[in-house]
Amino acid sequence: MRNLKLTLAYDGTDFCGWQVQPGQRTVQATVEQTLHTITGEEIRVVASGRTDSGVHAFGQVISFPTDSKLPVESLLRAMNAELPEDVRIQKIEEAPADFHALRSAVCKRYRYTIDNGRVDDLFDRRVAWHIPVPLDVEAMQRAANLLIGRHDFSSFESVGAERASSVRTISALAVSRCQRVERWQGGQPGQGGEGELVNIEIEADGFLYNMVRAIAGTLVEVGRGAKREAWVGEVLQALDRKQAGMTAPAQGLTLVWVRYE
Amino acid sequence: MRNLKLTLAYDGTDFCGWQVQPGQRTVQATVEQTLHTITGEEIRVVASGRTDSGVHAFGQVISFPTDSKLPVESLLRAMNAELPEDVRIQKIEEAPADFHALRSAVCKRYRYTIDNGRVDDLFDRRVAWHIPVPLDVEAMQRAANLLIGRHDFSSFESVGAERASSVRTISALAVSRCQRVERWQGGQPGQGGEGELVNIEIEADGFLYNMVRAIAGTLVEVGRGAKREAWVGEVLQALDRKQAGMTAPAQGLTLVWVRYE
Repeated sequence: MRNLKLTLAYDGTDFCGWQVQPGQRTVQATVEQTLHTITGEEIRVVASGRTDSGVHAFGQVISFPTDSKLPVESLLRAMNAELPEDVRIQKIEEAPADFHALRSAVCKRYRYTIDNGRVDDLFDRRVAWHIPVPLDVEAMQRAANLLIGRHDFSSFESVGAERASSVRTISALAVSRCQRVERWQGGQPGQGGEGELVNIEIEADGFLYNMVRAIAGTLVEVGRGAKREAWVGEVLQALDRKQAGMTAPAQGLTLVWVRYE
Repeated sequence: MRNLKLTLAYDGTDFCGWQVQPGQRTVQATVEQTLHTITGEEIRVVASGRTDSGVHAFGQVISFPTDSKLPVESLLRAMNAELPEDVRIQKIEEAPADFHALRSAVCKRYRYTIDNGRVDDLFDRRVAWHIPVPLDVEAMQRAANLLIGRHDFSSFESVGAERASSVRTISALAVSRCQRVERWQGGQPGQGGEGELVNIEIEADGFLYNMVRAIAGTLVEVGRGAKREAWVGEVLQALDRKQAGMTAPAQGLTLVWVRYE
C-alpha cells in the first residue's frame, strides 16, 4: 500500500466547497471520482483543511492510500486528462506511511485579494472582492501588526465549528498593494490600467472557521477610514465575533500553500 | 449633439465577438442595448475595430453621438450598473465632433498570451493558450524581429476579409516570459508556482484579419524548435497564408489599447 501526497489547484467558483456533500458538486468528490475512474479503487482522500464554497486554492495538499502501481507522473497526467477544467493536479509525490495531509501540516498561507480599482476589473471578478473606495494600505498593515503572534482569535471565528481551542499563531500578516504589472506592462497609463489589487497574506499554524475572511473584513474597516487602527486590537481582546468587521466574500480567498516538516 | 469616446474592457469568452449579429450575444449589441436603456436613444456605436468570438479587450475604444445631457461620470456609473459582469466601462470622455473610433486610430496594441506551464494554470484558462512544451523565447524574439517594419502581411491574413491593401507597419513586437509574480509572491518555489506565461505584444498601425493569431501560431513553431528562425522571414516573403503556422486559438488574444492623435 502506497501513501501519496498530491498538490492541487482549483477555481472554487463553481464548487460547493471542498468537502463531500450529497447531491453537491464538491472538489473532494470530483477528485475521488477521478481516482476511482483511473484506479478502480474506492479512495477516500484527506485534505490539509476544508475550503468553503467559492474559495480557491493554488496549493491545496491531500493524502491518500492506494494499491495502484501507476508511476506518479502517469497518474498526474491521467488525472489532469480526466478532471474538469477547474481542478488541476500540480504534483504527486510518494509520501511516508505516516504522512497525513491534515495532521502533518505545520503552517498554511492564505491570500485575500481585493480589487481596489474604481471600476471592477472583470478579469479578476472570480478571485477578488471589489471595493471602489481607495484603501489606506499602510494603516491596514499597522492594524494587522496587532494580530501577529499567538492569540485567542475568538473574535474572528464564525459560529458553527466546534474547536478544542481558539488559540492560533499568526506568523506573518502582510497587506500590500500591487499593480497588475504583467497585464498592463507597456500599456498607456490611465487608459484602462488604473486597476489595483490589495493583497492580504496570512500565515498561521492553523485557521479558525472563516478567520481569514473575518480579518479581511475587519482590516477593510480601517483601510476605508471607518475605524481607527487601535480598534483592531480592541476587537482581538473582546473575544466576541460581533465586535469585528464583516466576513469578507468567499471569492477573494485563496489557499496559497501548506507547509510540512 | 455630443460625440462621446468610451473605453471599455470585456471578457470575450461568452460573446460571439464584437459585432452585432442577429440572434447572437455580442459586445456591440450589449453596449448598444445598455445605452438605449439609459438614454432612450437608438445609438449605433463605432469601435476601433472588431474583435472575434472569444477575443478579449482591456482598452477597446468606441465612439457614438448622443443627445443625452448626462454627465460622463453619471453615464459611466449607470452603464456599469446595467451591464453584465463581463463588460466594464473604464472611461468616458467628451470628444471633438470629428472623432471617429475607427478612422482616428493611429496605433493599436494586441497581446497574445501563452500559458507555458507543464500543467495548465486554471486561473488563466480563459485568457491563455496552453502549450506544455517549453518555448525558446529568445529564438521567438529573433524571429519576430524579422516582422517589424512596413511589410505586406498577406501570409498572416486569413481569407474572408476584403482589404484595399495587406501592407501594415508593425512598430513593436516583443516576446517575453514572465512569472506570475503577483499571484505567487512569497509562495514556496516549486509548490504549484511553476507556471509561466509567454506574452507576445504587437503594436501596429492596423491589423489584418487574424493577423496576430497567425503570427503567434508561427512564432510558436520556432519556439518549440520545429522551425528555424529564418523560416519566419521566408513565410513573410511568400505572401501565402498556407506557408505560415496555425492560427492560434482566440482565447489567448487581447486588445490592450488603441492610440489616437
